[in-house]
Amino acid sequence: MSGLPPTLIKVIESFSKFPGIGQKTAYRLGLYVLKSHPNEIEEFAYSLLDVKKKISTCNLCHNISESELCEICSDIKRDKSIICVCEQPSDIYLIEKTGFSGIYHVLGGLLSPLDGIGHDELNCDSLILRVKSAGEVIIATDASIEGDTTALYIQKILENESIKITRLARGLPVGGNLEFVDEATLTRSITERVDINS
Amino acid sequence: MSGLPPTLIKVIESFSKFPGIGQKTAYRLGLYVLKSHPNEIEEFAYSLLDVKKKISTCNLCHNISESELCEICSDIKRDKSIICVCEQPSDIYLIEKTGFSGIYHVLGGLLSPLDGIGHDELNCDSLILRVKSAGEVIIATDASIEGDTTALYIQKILENESIKITRLARGLPVGGNLEFVDEATLTRSITERVDINS
Repeated sequence: MSGLPPTLIKVIESFSKFPGIGQKTAYRLGLYVLKSHPNEIEEFAYSLLDVKKKISTCNLCHNISESELCEICSDIKRDKSIICVCEQPSDIYLIEKTGFSGIYHVLGGLLSPLDGIGHDELNCDSLILRVKSAGEVIIATDASIEGDTTALYIQKILENESIKITRLARGLPVGGNLEFVDEATLTRSITERVDINS
Repeated sequence: MSGLPPTLIKVIESFSKFPGIGQKTAYRLGLYVLKSHPNEIEEFAYSLLDVKKKISTCNLCHNISESELCEICSDIKRDKSIICVCEQPSDIYLIEKTGFSGIYHVLGGLLSPLDGIGHDELNCDSLILRVKSAGEVIIATDASIEGDTTALYIQKILENESIKITRLARGLPVGGNLEFVDEATLTRSITERVDINS
């Protein structure tokens, strides 16, 4: 990048720190900044600053929010009796697309004793308090070892509450071809087979 | 993106305006902003503002620059007798990688009468003034119709100056396979064949 003005180099370097953005893409984005209208870039820069200044977490579900309660928790139309427990705020937006109408609880991570992430690092205590008013808790952690371990742990700490605890189904992905499904998934889809007549 | 805080939506929308960044990538970049350290994002935001505030063009060659003369024009080690004429500043950084040690002149576009881009829209007059002190002008426009038209035009307006005018060679790309080279390129590579003994 010899010959480029230092401020432009700084922008390119910042872009290249973003996930999935390599040196060449960062350079192209830097040139785009250079060519864009100043107002557009100014707006972008101030919106970046805004995100870091204004967004914190919801007091109830730990989702990201600009106010004390997030949009979902403060929505009176949501079914407050079903709490979907997930790892991080971004999981909420994936589940929202399915049309789920309950509320959420963000753990803020998955159990990982080796990394020093245990009960106290996750939002477990606030979950125990919240479930008292709920009828069902859906544990929507990843289908990975850490996800399953966390799901088991959540199940254990909630076993004394009189609520229904469920987790996401495992099986063939929709549109999936038997030939390309891995053995473990196929095994789960047989074990958890569903009665067609039901 | 229902349920996302408005400031985050704004950042995601800004990202998706960048070239080559789709809705999904923009969303991932937005989440990265959310997770990043505030200092890092602040630095990024201010560097964006800096680019629009500090960078203008070099008075001599019209390259982008933070000062009146760009780094290349103010470098006493550059060979001022060879001027490489290119379309835009980004071309300079491609040519710099080849080890070219002359100086540049940025036209700021290519001739395109239909779009209303003629002599006055390009930095032609300043080129005519500059070449008086040069020995050679290399025209490094694209090998497209617009690029060739512009190259011909530059050649014409400089024909009364006592300088050597050259343009970039056309032919097989290095590492290129005859089988995959298009007919026009192959024709040019035969017409402009080079004597091996020379």
